[in-house]
Amino acid sequence: MTTTAPTTAGPAPLAGRFDVIPLESVVFGPGAAGGLAAECERLGMSRLLLIASPSLARRLDMRAVFDAATGGRVAGVFTGGRPHVPDDVVLAAAEAARAAGADGVLSVGGGSVVDLGKAVSLCVAEGVRTREELLAWRVVFEYPATVEIPTTTAPQLPHIAVSTTLSAGEFTSIIGITDTQRLVKDLYITPSLVPRMVVLDPELAVHTPRDLWASTGLRAVDHAVEALCSTSAQPVTDALSADALHRLTRYLPVSTADSADLHAAGQCQVAAWESIFGLTNVNLGLSHGIGHQLGARCGVPHGITSCVMLPAVLDYNLEHTSPAQARIAQIFATAAGVAAEVGAGELVRRFIASLGLPTSLREVGVERSEFPALARDAMADLIVASNPRPVTGEDEVIAILDSAY
Amino acid sequence: MTTTAPTTAGPAPLAGRFDVIPLESVVFGPGAAGGLAAECERLGMSRLLLIASPSLARRLDMRAVFDAATGGRVAGVFTGGRPHVPDDVVLAAAEAARAAGADGVLSVGGGSVVDLGKAVSLCVAEGVRTREELLAWRVVFEYPATVEIPTTTAPQLPHIAVSTTLSAGEFTSIIGITDTQRLVKDLYITPSLVPRMVVLDPELAVHTPRDLWASTGLRAVDHAVEALCSTSAQPVTDALSADALHRLTRYLPVSTADSADLHAAGQCQVAAWESIFGLTNVNLGLSHGIGHQLGARCGVPHGITSCVMLPAVLDYNLEHTSPAQARIAQIFATAAGVAAEVGAGELVRRFIASLGLPTSLREVGVERSEFPALARDAMADLIVASNPRPVTGEDEVIAILDSAY
Repeated sequence: MTTTAPTTAGPAPLAGRFDVIPLESVVFGPGAAGGLAAECERLGMSRLLLIASPSLARRLDMRAVFDAATGGRVAGVFTGGRPHVPDDVVLAAAEAARAAGADGVLSVGGGSVVDLGKAVSLCVAEGVRTREELLAWRVVFEYPATVEIPTTTAPQLPHIAVSTTLSAGEFTSIIGITDTQRLVKDLYITPSLVPRMVVLDPELAVHTPRDLWASTGLRAVDHAVEALCSTSAQPVTDALSADALHRLTRYLPVSTADSADLHAAGQCQVAAWESIFGLTNVNLGLSHGIGHQLGARCGVPHGITSCVMLPAVLDYNLEHTSPAQARIAQIFATAAGVAAEVGAGELVRRFIASLGLPTSLREVGVERSEFPALARDAMADLIVASNPRPVTGEDEVIAILDSAY
Repeated sequence: MTTTAPTTAGPAPLAGRFDVIPLESVVFGPGAAGGLAAECERLGMSRLLLIASPSLARRLDMRAVFDAATGGRVAGVFTGGRPHVPDDVVLAAAEAARAAGADGVLSVGGGSVVDLGKAVSLCVAEGVRTREELLAWRVVFEYPATVEIPTTTAPQLPHIAVSTTLSAGEFTSIIGITDTQRLVKDLYITPSLVPRMVVLDPELAVHTPRDLWASTGLRAVDHAVEALCSTSAQPVTDALSADALHRLTRYLPVSTADSADLHAAGQCQVAAWESIFGLTNVNLGLSHGIGHQLGARCGVPHGITSCVMLPAVLDYNLEHTSPAQARIAQIFATAAGVAAEVGAGELVRRFIASLGLPTSLREVGVERSEFPALARDAMADLIVASNPRPVTGEDEVIAILDSAY
């Protein structure tokens, strides 16, 4: 529009865009995972491939539990997932879906299990059976601005994700798949990859090991913190991220200490959802960008990458994000009963340590000799280009890794 | 799930469901309405029926402005809208869409114009040409629990809504259409009625009369307040509603006083969006329920119904919603620089009066003799049944109307 007089002087007007990914429903609360028959009916799912976390499958008879929950719709079970979604696992799970004649996916577990569910939907829709066919769908990025995102068109299998950790990958249309030959985590991005429905049931989360629960909670903290610090922060993500941090700083310690506290667990699950709500609409930063590569190359779990990188990245970005960091510091300081002047980086570091989680690369066994390769891979990660403080080269990434060592 | 030991004692766990309506994108900021050609292309819209607010059409050459903005796609223009969306206007606009061979709707204006756009999409899809055919699609409700919502199946015309007021109807899949024979506002509810895309452009909003801007801003306040007080309040709507109230209490007075302040206008537009984000997932209350009937029977504009009813409804609901009202009071008190102990009802009343808006039914010309009919119609409004304080009969509605008189 050019129909108006120039604006009066003052702050720059809000401007942005918010695209909604095609997730249809979220149900949350104790027992939510127990009543999925009507949801399967609504989504046209009659033969499910149940992809269950291996650790959960050791504790519960997953086929029996989810046959009951879905009205007898489980046609096959896959429990061969591994952290960071290696490509061989993806191809095996897709083959299991075909063998079961699956018309839908039900994933139950943490981020790797849900990502595997998304990957199966993609592979079945696009007829992917080999590593080469899979790689054709990855995002190719060259620093700083060349991106190729393949367009998928085939309808994917409907997917219900029942999440038992807090990393919130079930709310995204992004998959990270590790190429086991190149030892790099590739991104796959298609809006329709997001599950149609997400279920957050604290009764199921009591089985999640507490260290995994806590560290994935830090992943949610990382989502919220990098959204608030984003170069493209916007009101909806700011409001939800801040609310997520209020809940996580209050309830993650409680829930980590007592898995039977369903109120605290549910608060953390909802906070994880809030931390990622609309996150595709804002640019993230180095904690996510370096974290992807720490996972692929060094096998560091998602949540732990946030524990060891987020404080160092906050320190690195401080001058470029001081208003956001002041807001973050206030939330953590209030929860800890200390002064916000301590600063966001240090407050987040203390919060992580208070949960018994590692705060340095040394503690998680990453060697300095890997820094050059990590820095090179990170510079090839789409997300690094959007860090609030521009990253001028691999040397800077190595300096950040040093500070996190 | 019944796989866990009983929870430890403590607060009741969070539980709920959040369904996402199929709105795809929101763009906001100065100039956002000027670049819609690519969006029309993406949505498959080549021949638009432009439904423009009559008052805007007197100020701007709408066909020329939006032909430029859409790359020459305006095939017909309809400017015959009237407040509260009378049924005869709906039928006339649908006929205009057919005459223009429209494959898409572009609505530009306030809530009535956007609702007309939704109604045209419905009528064209379902072949509605008469009052009787239209009424077949309305929601039929009998107090307290009998609801019939007709299911639409035909694909609707894609619809882009460019909003110039703050009542936020462009974010819902609900239409209120006034039956001019029964003088009742009927609800029409179908998820796909929500526009595919919403545009919030403060440069276009400079033309909105300031009293309409302010009163529709109170409509957004009403959405946020009744969401926070809802019997089914949930974290996502709570966080966004609270953020909306922070922005509206700060920027609505600024923007009402100075239409050229695009920063303040944009803050109000985003706040209106936040106020209604996810609102279909929570029950609203009497301010919306009575407001619908004040509009249909007495011709009171949407925003004004909120001005005159919301404070009285807050007072009526106080004992059933005291934690939410304390939070609301804190936000209004902080903005006004007074003590929160004044109470939410009185603080909202003062905020309304400070904007030069009416705070009583008397001021807007509603006669006491109309109270019995208003109360009867309100009891037939779906929303009244969900008010936080149960409404036992028409006498109670009349008592609330008395207190708002």
